[in-house]
Amino acid sequence: MGWQKAMLDKLAQTFRIRNKLLRQGLAECLGTLILVMFGCGSVAQMVLSGGSHGRFLTINLAFGFAATLGILVCGQVSGGHLNPAVTFALCLLGRAKWRKFPVYFLFQTIGSFLGAAIIFAEYHDAMYDFAGETNQLLVSGPKATAGIFATYPNPHLTILNGFFDQVIGTASLIVCVLAIVDPYNNPVPPGLEAFTVGFSILLIGLSMGFNSGYAVNPARDFGPRLFTAIAGWGSEVFTTRQCWFLVPFFAPFLGSIIGVIVYQLMVGWYLEAEARDKTNKDMEESLKLNDVTGKN
Amino acid sequence: MGWQKAMLDKLAQTFRIRNKLLRQGLAECLGTLILVMFGCGSVAQMVLSGGSHGRFLTINLAFGFAATLGILVCGQVSGGHLNPAVTFALCLLGRAKWRKFPVYFLFQTIGSFLGAAIIFAEYHDAMYDFAGETNQLLVSGPKATAGIFATYPNPHLTILNGFFDQVIGTASLIVCVLAIVDPYNNPVPPGLEAFTVGFSILLIGLSMGFNSGYAVNPARDFGPRLFTAIAGWGSEVFTTRQCWFLVPFFAPFLGSIIGVIVYQLMVGWYLEAEARDKTNKDMEESLKLNDVTGKN
Amino acid sequence: MGWQKAMLDKLAQTFRIRNKLLRQGLAECLGTLILVMFGCGSVAQMVLSGGSHGRFLTINLAFGFAATLGILVCGQVSGGHLNPAVTFALCLLGRAKWRKFPVYFLFQTIGSFLGAAIIFAEYHDAMYDFAGETNQLLVSGPKATAGIFATYPNPHLTILNGFFDQVIGTASLIVCVLAIVDPYNNPVPPGLEAFTVGFSILLIGLSMGFNSGYAVNPARDFGPRLFTAIAGWGSEVFTTRQCWFLVPFFAPFLGSIIGVIVYQLMVGWYLEAEARDKTNKDMEESLKLNDVTGKN
Amino acid sequence: MGWQKAMLDKLAQTFRIRNKLLRQGLAECLGTLILVMFGCGSVAQMVLSGGSHGRFLTINLAFGFAATLGILVCGQVSGGHLNPAVTFALCLLGRAKWRKFPVYFLFQTIGSFLGAAIIFAEYHDAMYDFAGETNQLLVSGPKATAGIFATYPNPHLTILNGFFDQVIGTASLIVCVLAIVDPYNNPVPPGLEAFTVGFSILLIGLSMGFNSGYAVNPARDFGPRLFTAIAGWGSEVFTTRQCWFLVPFFAPFLGSIIGVIVYQLMVGWYLEAEARDKTNKDMEESLKLNDVTGKN
Repeated sequence: MGWQKAMLDKLAQTFRIRNKLLRQGLAECLGTLILVMFGCGSVAQMVLSGGSHGRFLTINLAFGFAATLGILVCGQVSGGHLNPAVTFALCLLGRAKWRKFPVYFLFQTIGSFLGAAIIFAEYHDAMYDFAGETNQLLVSGPKATAGIFATYPNPHLTILNGFFDQVIGTASLIVCVLAIVDPYNNPVPPGLEAFTVGFSILLIGLSMGFNSGYAVNPARDFGPRLFTAIAGWGSEVFTTRQCWFLVPFFAPFLGSIIGVIVYQLMVGWYLEAEARDKTNKDMEESLKLNDVTGKN
Repeated sequence: MGWQKAMLDKLAQTFRIRNKLLRQGLAECLGTLILVMFGCGSVAQMVLSGGSHGRFLTINLAFGFAATLGILVCGQVSGGHLNPAVTFALCLLGRAKWRKFPVYFLFQTIGSFLGAAIIFAEYHDAMYDFAGETNQLLVSGPKATAGIFATYPNPHLTILNGFFDQVIGTASLIVCVLAIVDPYNNPVPPGLEAFTVGFSILLIGLSMGFNSGYAVNPARDFGPRLFTAIAGWGSEVFTTRQCWFLVPFFAPFLGSIIGVIVYQLMVGWYLEAEARDKTNKDMEESLKLNDVTGKN
Repeated sequence: MGWQKAMLDKLAQTFRIRNKLLRQGLAECLGTLILVMFGCGSVAQMVLSGGSHGRFLTINLAFGFAATLGILVCGQVSGGHLNPAVTFALCLLGRAKWRKFPVYFLFQTIGSFLGAAIIFAEYHDAMYDFAGETNQLLVSGPKATAGIFATYPNPHLTILNGFFDQVIGTASLIVCVLAIVDPYNNPVPPGLEAFTVGFSILLIGLSMGFNSGYAVNPARDFGPRLFTAIAGWGSEVFTTRQCWFLVPFFAPFLGSIIGVIVYQLMVGWYLEAEARDKTNKDMEESLKLNDVTGKN
Repeated sequence: MGWQKAMLDKLAQTFRIRNKLLRQGLAECLGTLILVMFGCGSVAQMVLSGGSHGRFLTINLAFGFAATLGILVCGQVSGGHLNPAVTFALCLLGRAKWRKFPVYFLFQTIGSFLGAAIIFAEYHDAMYDFAGETNQLLVSGPKATAGIFATYPNPHLTILNGFFDQVIGTASLIVCVLAIVDPYNNPVPPGLEAFTVGFSILLIGLSMGFNSGYAVNPARDFGPRLFTAIAGWGSEVFTTRQCWFLVPFFAPFLGSIIGVIVYQLMVGWYLEAEARDKTNKDMEESLKLNDVTGKN
């Protein structure tokens, strides 16, 4: 055991990265990888099994709990955002530094790219079995498998409604996340934040998933889409439906801004002000007390 | 970052509302908005997808967890009632002031009105796609979409049984809520009350949802119904089935009274008395002790 | 408010029952009522809606969470057994007094009788609508509704396998419950026991529900069965399938004994002994210390 | 009661096993028994009811929560591994002694063998009813029941992809488990580890269950397979699909190694180093302080 311990310590020393932001990026990468691997895996399971091993509810459950586990795995290192829109909201409120934003965005996208790659490997046989005689990976039609990785709009959806759909979804997510992590609100016991965020994502899937599959996360959508473009589905994944991919890439940031405004306006600033008033009052009282006792 | 912080503080100052009851009303408004947005969103998803993206279970899950999140978001400011029947029960027991009741009722109704409006926008395209060639928003028939927003009774249901259905449902909810928030009972760890209330609502949906869709909440039913009347479904939403809308508006308050009586009679007053006896005994003992030590 | 408070206090005084065992019985009654009301309600919802508003999974979820809520409501007063087999197991281990057993059994049965009555009222219209032209409440056949309240075996099941089914189910439940409430094991945070017991019941339903509907609780099965015999289904509810009703009435107690033996043999006594050894050692050490310091 | 207590104490003394490793093995045995009994029970319920009493989602839920309960029951005694791949990972990291590995492996396999036996008894009638006129227990074909106990690959799956499937699944599980129990990460409140591990297994089932039924556990697969070979399904359970049974027996250990590397590389060693740096700094500071105060 002594020999084993020594070797483990040596390994830990060797592979240790000293740059904090890089380490946080790597942790975000692993967290987002877990989110996309389990999430897109559940879509693959439903699509490829023709519904026998999964339904839309299982996808909702999988994305929700995958977010929970992703946050749990990397939360202590990086905060567990897993979503550039969340990082953006926290930057807007001054709770994260702006230079974190591009680094997190990049590593979140890499993580979701890798997560998609793992699911491609996991279901390689099943995917070609599903494709049938043509043996092709298709973006649209009844044998399409591109929807396993990135989101595509339902036929009924216009680009405008789709944009609005992503804005509403992300704004809802941000309101919930801000309430959960607000130090002045603090509604859940410490250690359960990840579960509550997971429930929020489950809820968004249960009620806003029909239009275009609730990406509400630029990295979760773009990373796997890039992977499919490379892995054999071709550039159609970007050009289809009037370049739909731009919507889940940009709309979430607008949703993030709206979510921040709504939460702060209706709950956040009030709780903050209350906490500040209380501190001020305490300070004044201690000042008065000092006057009385002649200390100052 | 200093510039950002200053601007945020200024915004917080500008938009701060100093009237406490109004702030609580706004928080209730946001909480009920979240409840109705996610809840009615899940109904829309099931109805408009023809069952492929949701079933009755997903609606139950959505309303349950939506209540949890709504309570978490606004609970620190307003207590997170989200339901006039809950406010009514707490007023009956003297745990909330009666003047809160009309304010909360009003803002809960506004919140659920707005939640319905968001879902109308979210699923605008899908709703007209579902309506088909007629392009009309209908209250009844196979292409009806009014049931996404407000509750309508099943054909088998008489008004009397429907009234009883709402009374039983609300009474069950109130018994559970009172047990969860009773300071003398206190059965769940602090911070998990919202989750437990969510489970109660999930349960009511799982077992009492078949008759008329378990409104058990006057605001959740009336706000969205008013919205549909304005948005294009017309006055039929009020007149249909012998003015059914009056049942989920009034019956929950009777259910609230019955729930309060049942809980207090079978559990609540006993725990209260036990706590009081204990305090009295402690006081007596300390008095005796004082006698002995000659302090008094 | 002063007037309201005075009246509430007077009511509390008037309706206060001073006999502790009777109060505990009433609390068990309310808890079991909640268990059966929500549980059987979900069965009614599935059966009467023809599967559109519920499936077997919803029944499993409902019984699990109904147990959780029932325990939460009455747990502080009576311990929240809700099941004579649980009371029996705790009596066997000397953790509850034997005179509690008949009282709890009686009130648990009354509670489940009342819970069934509430569900009969809740779904009165739906039940007669389901019965169709004959307008009769039937025990068997495609229009049977007796299975909403009590359990009946699947056609494939022999009495012997049915007896074994109830023994296994109850033994599993008792092993889980004992682990959860064992003061020497103590695996879940305080306040979450009710949720964990609920999960155990959910699990039993998910994996042992196909044979005869997992009663694993003499009171939950007998109370509603008695109600159906009175309410219009007739004595057939007792005589059908070679007096099947005796199996879920007696088998759970044998399961309870087996569960106690298995848990104590494989985990319980070991943890107890470890705790006792530790206490003894501490005592010895403090004795030695006293010797050294010459205190004794 | 005095008589009862004396007898219980005597029983506890008689059946007490003093060898700690043997006791831990017995606890693992009970935990794995619970995992397999509930897990395989849910598969039996789905298969034998033809889908009316269960779907793939119920199996996922059952295996997840069964793991939770199994861990809760035996966790205080043995740590609640329930899986040789988990024991292996903890041995690799020096958190469990290597001599535990063969003992745990053996008892986990015995536990899952016994769990399978209980389910065979529980569904004995249903299994022969399902087999129909032939009255045979079959390994393949539409009337196959061997899949209730052990895992068999989907027709589309090659051995290579199947091996990779088990490696990915186990690696995902190990990353999640390590994050949950890492003393330097510690992301969930104490007492909730078992629930979080249960969620991880639920997730693996939701997204990686289509290929071959996510064994990710050599004991969970081999024990029940051995039972079926003895109980009447014959040696075909081992020889079918080019000796498939070797894949879920060996692949999880490779997955375990990969999971350990990924977690330690991307999160674990960083948190460990951070904690060590902090301790070192504290020590240095206290040394400096001692210099100043002249104590050393």
